[in-house]
This record gives sequence, structure tokens and C-alpha cells, in this order.
Amino acid sequence: MLTKPTLILDEKKCKKNIHDMFLKAQESNIDFRPHFKTHQSLEIGGWFKELGVNKITVSSLDMATYFSKEWDDITVAFPTNILEIDTINELASRINLNLLIESQESIQFLHECLTSKVNFFIKIDVGYHRTGINPLNSDLIGGILQISNNCDKIDFKGFLGHAGHTYQCRNKNDIITIHEESVQIMTQLKSKYIAKHPDFIISLGDTPSCSVAKSFEDIDEIRPGNFVFYDLTQNLIGSNTIEQIAVAMACPIVAIHEGREEIVIYGGGVHFSKDRLDDPKYGTIYGKIVKQNEDTTWGDLIPDMYVKSLSQEHGIISVPKQLIKNYKVGDLLFILPVHSCMTADLIKQYLTTEGNKI
Amino acid sequence: MLTKPTLILDEKKCKKNIHDMFLKAQESNIDFRPHFKTHQSLEIGGWFKELGVNKITVSSLDMATYFSKEWDDITVAFPTNILEIDTINELASRINLNLLIESQESIQFLHECLTSKVNFFIKIDVGYHRTGINPLNSDLIGGILQISNNCDKIDFKGFLGHAGHTYQCRNKNDIITIHEESVQIMTQLKSKYIAKHPDFIISLGDTPSCSVAKSFEDIDEIRPGNFVFYDLTQNLIGSNTIEQIAVAMACPIVAIHEGREEIVIYGGGVHFSKDRLDDPKYGTIYGKIVKQNEDTTWGDLIPDMYVKSLSQEHGIISVPKQLIKNYKVGDLLFILPVHSCMTADLIKQYLTTEGNKI
Repeated sequence: MLTKPTLILDEKKCKKNIHDMFLKAQESNIDFRPHFKTHQSLEIGGWFKELGVNKITVSSLDMATYFSKEWDDITVAFPTNILEIDTINELASRINLNLLIESQESIQFLHECLTSKVNFFIKIDVGYHRTGINPLNSDLIGGILQISNNCDKIDFKGFLGHAGHTYQCRNKNDIITIHEESVQIMTQLKSKYIAKHPDFIISLGDTPSCSVAKSFEDIDEIRPGNFVFYDLTQNLIGSNTIEQIAVAMACPIVAIHEGREEIVIYGGGVHFSKDRLDDPKYGTIYGKIVKQNEDTTWGDLIPDMYVKSLSQEHGIISVPKQLIKNYKVGDLLFILPVHSCMTADLIKQYLTTEGNKI
Repeated sequence: MLTKPTLILDEKKCKKNIHDMFLKAQESNIDFRPHFKTHQSLEIGGWFKELGVNKITVSSLDMATYFSKEWDDITVAFPTNILEIDTINELASRINLNLLIESQESIQFLHECLTSKVNFFIKIDVGYHRTGINPLNSDLIGGILQISNNCDKIDFKGFLGHAGHTYQCRNKNDIITIHEESVQIMTQLKSKYIAKHPDFIISLGDTPSCSVAKSFEDIDEIRPGNFVFYDLTQNLIGSNTIEQIAVAMACPIVAIHEGREEIVIYGGGVHFSKDRLDDPKYGTIYGKIVKQNEDTTWGDLIPDMYVKSLSQEHGIISVPKQLIKNYKVGDLLFILPVHSCMTADLIKQYLTTEGNKI
């Protein structure tokens, strides 16, 4: 029996999301290196293994250490934190470790301090402007390659980009435009450097682009992560339908305020995260409510029911007047999260619709 | 050596914050029942015990269970989650447990299912409109008291309010106005019900009111929590000076983008939380940078350096052109959080300025 905020994972939906993305990569004949920061679970990782996936992406050396129990080819898609050189050396002694470099200082540090071999990607800014090198900055790219050429412990693996600005899109055409621009930036780099470095690859792969693009002929690898669960943000962007969202939070109702047309749930910022969404109809929201089925699965959205605010432990649900009488204290509400990566990171445990704890 | 995002606790500042609030309560001759949801640590709880504090507030039954190892008088300042009746009964068999009630359904449920005695507060909405009963709703208040009168396992402890709308204030006068309104609401309730229930108390205590009010003559108990650390939000409200903030996150620099006047740190939403602040000068921010001293303590704010955005693991720092050359990859930045409760909840561990791990 569910008594506290619980993250429910619809195993069928999740496996279908994984399978669909796997097929898409396979049909384009490119590598599929899924990002595991969303689920952060060895068990869910196993569902990828069953399909033959053998390389992954993570966003911290801590996550790489966790997954290295079962995976031996891991890209840490985060600018190398040189302060963690001991962890880098430990991992590099055991697995095929791929790091991200965007400065000469970082690669020079690795050159001096590595005790085992690593591969590295040069992180390219494809337009998101969060991290990465301007693709036209040949001096910096050349400088980095120069240092790696002189170091037998650092192999150049390729160029890696993340088109995170697709998260600002609200329709598929805009996503495709950004994706095509990113591909063009990366293929131009490939043409420029391939003669000297014949084996390198180009890697892209935000969830919106990977969900919407039909194929990936010109790139070598995709790294989407969020697609495993999807969420309301991805739905607003245009990446997925509501039906594809594979996680929901089940939260107990602790108070009902008919006059204010509000329900108070046990479920707050420490469960959902404070990530928010600017909904075209409701303004700032933190989740939407779905119909609960007889088992722990769920159906459609309940119109006009949404999480309007979150405190540390409380959530406030806006409920239409005509619906509020259907609920009582002690009922559960099933809520689709705004950002499934952050919610999963906070809750750290899933209850699957098959009744398993992960 | 610090290699990853680390929450640093300035032990001296924290103990001074605790001592100052303790003295204020003592001078007003009222009970001090600090809220422990901010620090969530038995060890920091010990610093209160040293002063003679013997009762506390928490915001979930899980936290009550954790603190019940060392505390035997705990108020769960959250509408009772009747689904956790087993935990309630277990705790009530061991400690003095105080619950919050705001509906007849909840107290009726307790009446039928309690196996040990609990006390309860009626939660009053003093104007925040998140939870609580309208103080003029005598029917509902009377109905709840009626049920408790007929149940030997439920003792009426008093009326409890939380003036969370002080968090919208931006100066001390506005805070005092809200505080005085809350006190007036509660004292009117006291006058109305004291004849029939001679022993009950009134409990208030958001951090802004408790920090700014000079004394608390007309109430019986305060329950502030955030004051133990304070943060940038409380500073903006007017609760504390920057010097009083007792926690800072130390985050490694992983990339520097001079052209964009930005530094990338290892430190994101999973470390700080996505809580944000509308700064009058910089717009939406997620933290501000302070000068690091030779040891792990810190000094003043560095003007115009702030966290402008957060992803899951990345933070982007806006840095003035003339300062950015002072930094290099591998340096640490010390950052004051927007909301210390959420940051502490995420990090779950402190490194004190005395070198202890908590």
C-alpha cells in the first residue's frame, strides 16, 4: 500500500520508449550511447543491455563509478573536473573512459597526471552556449589536439555537441531546424579534421532532436537520456505524447479546501524538485494530474487539474469546483512530473507497475 | 581536499544564529520549538540541546522518526497524513507526538485508529492560504474539538499558524505588519476558546517574523527553522545580513568562457535545488559568490558575480570582464544558496569550518 510520495514507473511504457529509440539508431546504422543521468539505475540499464546496447553516457564521475559495476564503456558528458583526477585514474584503469575537454589547461593537466589511458571528446558549442568551444575557434581546437598528439595516454575520440537550446522550442519544425544546424556544424568539423584523425566520430543527442528527427545519417552516435521516461516539459516541446510519459508520482491527499478550489498533497520540492513549466493555459505549474486506473497504472490527464505551487513537503493542486467533491483526505493523486530527471534524482527509488522496487 | 560540490557550514555563525534566537524566545518567556527541517541533522540538533532546548518541530513523520532517537517532544507541522497511521502509532507509543489537524475527517480517523495518545494542534490559516482553517470558521473548529472531547487518545494542544506570506515581503515593516495580524488572529482565538480549554497554547513562527520581531509577548511558542543557516532569500526579505548566512556551497570550476563572461562550475540543480530568486539587480538568480578566506570560511559578496542558470549538474556563473582572469579551471567558488533548506536536503552532508563532517 502506498502511504508516502512514491515514484511509479510504468515498465511497459518505459521499455517501449527504450525500444523505439534503439530501433531509430539501428535504422540509421549509428551508435546508441544512451544518457543514464535520467534513471540512474543499474536495473533499468539492464533493459538497454537486453537490446544489445553496450556503451553509455553519464554526467558525473560519481555516476560513472556507479555504472562501472556493469558497464565498461562510459562517456562522462560534463567538462572534466580535474580535481577528481584520482577517480579518473581509478576508472581509467578498469574501463573505457571517455572525457570531455574544452580547454588546453584541462588536457595539459590530464597529460601530466593520467596513469591510465582515456579517450576524449572536444566539446563543441553547437548554439546552446552553456559549455563547449566555438566551432570556428581553430586555434583552441588545434591547441588541444596538439597536446593530445604528444601524449600516449590521451586518444582523440571526436567532437561532441549538445543542442540543449531545443528545450526552448515549442514545435517540431523548430527542433528540426536546430538539429540540422547542429549536424551541419559537426559535419563541417569532420570534413576539416578527418584527414589527420581518420577514426574520430561526431556525437550529438538531446532528447527533443532524437525524438523528432526521422534519421541520423550524417552523425555517428546519439546520446539522448530523458526519452526513457519523458515528461511534461518534453511534451510541451513536442518530443512526446502524454501517453509516452513513463513515470508518475503518487501523492497522498492531506487536506481539501473547497472554497479555494485546492487540494493539499504530501509531495513537495524535495520530491518533485522545484523545476517549473510555463504552461500556455495555466501559467507556472509543477505537474499535472492523471486518472488513476484500478492498478498502479494511469490514463489521461484530468482537465484543469495541476500542481500550482510547491513548498518543501507540500504541493498545492488546483482543482475545478465540480471535481473537488470526488476527493477525500487519504486518497492518492497521480501526478506527471515537469522534469523526470530531477524527480528521479530526488526520489532515488521506483515502484514499477509490475510491483517491483527498483 | 574539496574535489566535488560540498556544503560548507560555518559552525560559529550557525551557533550564533541559534543562540540569538534562543535568547529572544527566553527574553519573551515563551517556548522555543525550532523547526529542524532546515538542517535535518541530529548533530546540529545537539547544539540546541546544549542550550536547554527540549522540543522540536519537523515537517514529516519520516523526520520525526529520525529525530525521535534523541528527542521526545516533536510537532509534525504538516497536515496529518492518515495513510501513515502505523508510523503515527509507533511514534506515539514512544514520544510526545503533536499532530496538525484541519478537517473533521482526519481527527475522526485518528479517533478510530489511534493505539497511543497524541496531542493535536488545529492548523489556522493566518493569511498565507496554503493550508489551515479560516479562523472565523467556528463550525469546523467546534466540530474538531467535539470529536477530540469524546476521545481519550487525542488531546487538544492549541492553535498553530504559519505566516508564510512574510516570504513575499521585502522590508521589515511589512513583516511586522503580517506578524501583528497573525498574533491578533491567534489571540482572538485564544480569548474565544480559553474558558473551555484552559491549557491550550498558540504557536507561530516563520523565520522572517521571528528574526524581525523584537518580542513575542502574546504568543506561547515560536517555531522558526531557516534562521539556523539563513540564505539569500531571507536576506532579500530582510531577515538577516549576508554575514549571518552560515552555509556556502564550494564548487569546482570546470570551464571558463571569457568571451561570454561566464564560468561553468560542477554544481547544478541536484546540488542547489532549482529554487530561484528575483534579484532586483540581476533578475532570476540561483546563488551569489563570496570571497573565500585562506581556510574554508568566507567573507563578503563579490560584486556582480552570481549563478545565472542551473542544469542538472552544471551551474553557469556570470562574471564581470575584469574579474574573470583571476580564475582558472580547478579553482573552487564559494556560493551562498538561494534556499538553504532545499540545498541542505539535497546534499545531506556538511563539512564544518572546523573540519568535521556532519
